[in-house]
Formats: sequence, C-alpha cells, structure tokens
Amino acid sequence: MAEEVMNNKQIILKHYVEDYPKESDMEFKNNNIKLNVPEGSNVVVLKNLYLSCDPYMRSRMSKLEGSYVQSFTPGSPITGCGVAKVLESVDSNFQEGDLVWGMTGWEEYSIVTATQSALFKIHDKNVPLSYYTGILGMPGMTAYVGFYEICSPKKGETVFVSAASGAVGQLVGQFAKMLGCYVVGSAGTKEKVDLLKNKFDFDEAFNYKEEKDLVAALKRYFPNGIDIYFENVGGKMLDAVLLNMKLCGRIAVCGMISQYNLEKTEGVHNLFCLITKRIRMEGFLVSDHYHLYPKYLEMIIPQIKGGNVVYVEDIAEGLENAPKALVGLFYGRNVGKQVVKVSRE
Amino acid sequence: MAEEVMNNKQIILKHYVEDYPKESDMEFKNNNIKLNVPEGSNVVVLKNLYLSCDPYMRSRMSKLEGSYVQSFTPGSPITGCGVAKVLESVDSNFQEGDLVWGMTGWEEYSIVTATQSALFKIHDKNVPLSYYTGILGMPGMTAYVGFYEICSPKKGETVFVSAASGAVGQLVGQFAKMLGCYVVGSAGTKEKVDLLKNKFDFDEAFNYKEEKDLVAALKRYFPNGIDIYFENVGGKMLDAVLLNMKLCGRIAVCGMISQYNLEKTEGVHNLFCLITKRIRMEGFLVSDHYHLYPKYLEMIIPQIKGGNVVYVEDIAEGLENAPKALVGLFYGRNVGKQVVKVSRE
Repeated sequence: MAEEVMNNKQIILKHYVEDYPKESDMEFKNNNIKLNVPEGSNVVVLKNLYLSCDPYMRSRMSKLEGSYVQSFTPGSPITGCGVAKVLESVDSNFQEGDLVWGMTGWEEYSIVTATQSALFKIHDKNVPLSYYTGILGMPGMTAYVGFYEICSPKKGETVFVSAASGAVGQLVGQFAKMLGCYVVGSAGTKEKVDLLKNKFDFDEAFNYKEEKDLVAALKRYFPNGIDIYFENVGGKMLDAVLLNMKLCGRIAVCGMISQYNLEKTEGVHNLFCLITKRIRMEGFLVSDHYHLYPKYLEMIIPQIKGGNVVYVEDIAEGLENAPKALVGLFYGRNVGKQVVKVSRE
Repeated sequence: MAEEVMNNKQIILKHYVEDYPKESDMEFKNNNIKLNVPEGSNVVVLKNLYLSCDPYMRSRMSKLEGSYVQSFTPGSPITGCGVAKVLESVDSNFQEGDLVWGMTGWEEYSIVTATQSALFKIHDKNVPLSYYTGILGMPGMTAYVGFYEICSPKKGETVFVSAASGAVGQLVGQFAKMLGCYVVGSAGTKEKVDLLKNKFDFDEAFNYKEEKDLVAALKRYFPNGIDIYFENVGGKMLDAVLLNMKLCGRIAVCGMISQYNLEKTEGVHNLFCLITKRIRMEGFLVSDHYHLYPKYLEMIIPQIKGGNVVYVEDIAEGLENAPKALVGLFYGRNVGKQVVKVSRE
C-alpha cells in the first residue's frame, strides 16, 4: 500500500467519568490517519465494521490503578471489541481482505498488533458478521465458559439469570434450556421480558422494576429454590438470590452492572447463606478461557444455523451514534446485544 | 440400673435472644431426672463431662425458621457438643463406661439417642478428654475440612485466618504451616496475638482492634496478596480481604462471628473483586464431611502426641459458669477453645 493519509472519524474519551457516563463525556472527531505501515513493525491495518458496547467498558472510563483492565486514555479513542477487515498486514498470519475480531479502536481505521488486540481470524462468514461481537465473540464465550465451566450445571436443575436479555444472559438461558434446566430470567422492561419468554424460550421471566419485593418474586418462580444463579447485576438482586438459593447451589459471578456507576457500591447483607447453604460463588473472566474458543465455535455454529439458538442484537447505525449506544447500556436501553455498525464492509 | 431419680443441674434458655446474649438469658436450675431407661427405647444415658461453647450456638438462641440449625427450646436446657460417659445404654453400640462425644444437653445427665446426638465413641483416651470438644471433635474437623477440602491449598501459598486463636483458627494456621504456607492471623487482644506468634507458629499476627485501616494492615502482611482466606468473622474484615486477595484466590467461609449479634448485618461492598480476581468463595458445614473423621483422627492424633500440633483451651469450671463462658465468646473473652468442665469423670 502506498503512503496514504485518510480521514479517520473517531470517538474520543474527553475525560475520566464519574457516576453514569454521558454522551458529552465523549467526542465525535475527524482526524487523519496514515495508513502506511512502518518498516520493521508487525502491525495490521484494520477497517472497522462493527464495534461492541459492553458493560465492562464502564470501568475503563474511570481512572484505574492495578485493575484487571486499563483505563482508556482521555484524548484518545475508546477501544473495545470489534469486527474489522484487514486492509494491510505485516503480520504473516493475516492478509489483506481477512475478516477478524478482537480489540480495536472506536474509529474508522485502526492500526494494531495481532497480539495486543488478541485478533481472531473469522473463518465462517455464513453468519451475520456482527455476531463476532456477540454470540461468536467475547459475550458468547463468556456465557459458554460461565455456564458450563463455572456453574457445574446438571439436567433438571433450576437456573436464574439476571440481565437475562443482554449479550450474555440470553445465551446462558438458552444453554441452560438445551441442557434440560428450568430457567427464569429477569430484565427491566416488558419488551425484554416478552423476548425472554417468547424468543429465548425461558420458562419464566419477570421485570425486576415491577417487583417491590425481590425475595418474594424469586420465591414465586423458585418455590424450591435456585440451584444456579448467573450473576450479571449485583446489589439487591444478589441479596435476594442468596436467600432463595438451594443447598449446594452455585453462583457464577460474571458482572455487577447495577453497581458500576455508583460512587459507593451497595452492601450485600446475606452472605451468611453461603455457609448455611454450602454455596460456591465464583468469579471469572472470559480472558482466562480462550483456549476453549475453537471448541465453542464447533458447538455453537451448527446450533445457530439449525435455528436452535437465537441471538438478538440492538444495532446502532454509524460511529457517530456509538456514545449514545454505550451510555444506553447503563440505563438498560438496549434490547439484546448492543452493537455499533461503522461500515457494512 | 434400677429406677433412680437424680438431681440434675441444668442450664435453661429462658427466652429467645436478640442482640448480644446475656447471662440473664439463661438460668441455672436444679431439676430431677429419672435415669431409668424406658422399655422399647433405644436410648443412651449420659453423664456429661465437658461441654463445648461454639459461635454457631448464637443462631440457635434466636427464633429460627427453615434454618440449617434448630432453635433451642425456651424453658429447656441448651444443647451442644459435649464429651460424656455412658451410664447405661439400650443401644447395643454403646456400653456402660464408654466415653463418647456428640450432641448433649447443658446439664449433668442427659438421655439421648445415638442417632439424634450423632454420638462418636472415643477410642483414644491418651489425650485430654476435653479435646473431643475441640481439636478431636467438631472444630477440629471444621478446620481440617475447611482447609484441605475447600481451600485447595498448595505449598508456598499465603494464608490469612481471622479469629485465628479460636477453636478452629488455631488449627487452620497450624495445618497451613505444616503444608509450607506463609500464615498470618488476626485476633482481638495482645495476648491472643502473642499466642498466634509464639505458640501456634504463625508467621505474623495482628490485633484487628488496633488497626484503623484493615486494608492497609493486610497489605502490610501480604504485599503480594492473599491466596487463601479462612473466613471466621465476616463484615469489614471480609471487605478488606477482598481488596487484598490474589488472582485465583480462595475464600473458605466457615463463620461470620462479627455479624451474629447484629440486627442488620453489615453490607459487604467489594464483591466485584470476585470477578476481577477470579476468586472462589465457598461456604461449608462440617456436618457434610464426617465421613472423613476416621481419616482425620489417623492424621491428627500422632501430630498431637508428637507435639507438632498444639491446642489451647479455655476451660470454665462448673456447669454454673457455662452461661458466662458462652456469652464471653461473642466478646472474644475466651483465649483458645472455650470449654465448660461439668465433671472430671
């Protein structure tokens, strides 16, 4: 590729964020990018197609020290998972025209290294490409690992999933149903509750915002208790779940979205239940488990093509709408996996 | 044994307890007991020698519904673990003169069934009999199971034990040292801290009451973090520990004594660390693990006789002092395992 300076629209984080993030914390900016590849480098030049909005990104908007993720750099583009097309590559594992997913910038073009970006080559293109930000990407692997590796599920067990219509939750519920579990999900709107029951085949679902007493709500759906809780929200819901767990229950701690924008997190009061009910509560990060990704693809792609697993996405059109999409996540405005489409190809 | 009516001193729970228990919640009373054995029954008549004061007994002083333990019955004697001598037995597994340990009454004589009382026959008498309320009984098994089965410990790991000079903690620390771990304990007096360092061979120990900042205190003793936390106290200490855990750490949840007398338990705020550090936090009850008791005895008795494991008891003399001993437990007044001696034999 000859030296080429291109216009490169970007979403810049203006400053560290406190409380709920706002669109005004980010800026849509026109910059230039030199797409020529520096000699002696090992970079891959990407044209970004789909960007992923994920709850963990809230942490990266804060000033962090010694955390499991790095803060975004104010003044620079936000980074996150995305699907992209390779425009040029010095890395011999990638070639012009390849489709990939991994960490990329919130911009039209990014220059990355395959290692830092943890780039995966996309082999199967007979599925929507955006799925590689969701069911075939990080959230899919999160659901797979969290449910099968952390929850130790057995046929016939009772499973509760919070934030159940989200990128991860909708899959956990479907995996649990495939295994023959009884599955209930919670979500924050009637539309999402309908999705859970009608589209994702959950046995039951409820709108947590309409329940005055979460302990009683869970008791209603789980009169004999919960074997497995897939935790996406934290706070009051976790406290209510603890009181409703069965003996020897398991809690996979995947996320705590209800707490991310609070200056001081809510206290959890019912941890004594861990003892009386011999509960195992275990946190996990999908990044420890990517060696299972080929095995996961082998399982999930036929399920998608056979229509046994469905996936709902909420796709915002255009990079300029990415800030709104990301902010909306923390108000539960997305219905299904929140994606931003930057370019069709 | 001919029909015989004996004077039977008892400790009666007067009423359900709220807040911290007081001596006046219990009553020392003279009753009579018929020591003759009902025909057709399967009972064992016991003369109680040692009674055990254990933190879990606080729950039983409250009105409970659907808990893992049953409430005591107001107007009746308190029950708990104890060592006793068999005066008479219809159960063919026990004979007059046998020494046993299991659930018995806080009284001089009790009539029990072996099943309900989960009676174990004492075979090795070349150790202090009171040890069967502690290191050779329920607390010993609790330490053994909690450490070896729940913590998945490895040589060289860092271990923190709270309430470390108590019936369970002092053993967990010694087990961890035997395995080649670095062990730190917390306790509530200088005397206990000295015990931990000088008697139980902990690497370090500190008085949590003298630390303004528990997070900083733990950081001081664990600059590289905690692999294993043996949780006996709950509340603020748990919150501080969560911030100091290492990646892939384990928390065995054995007890939460700091919370038992609170009307509303303290909230725990740092559970998000479970995710970022991939921590497994698991509660357990010793009662699920008694099949390991013979294996435990085989391991521990030679260690006691060889002087490799030591055990400190705090023995209150006389049944009349049992209420004070039990109440003292919740103020940390006991130094080591709290026992009540009812009779030498």
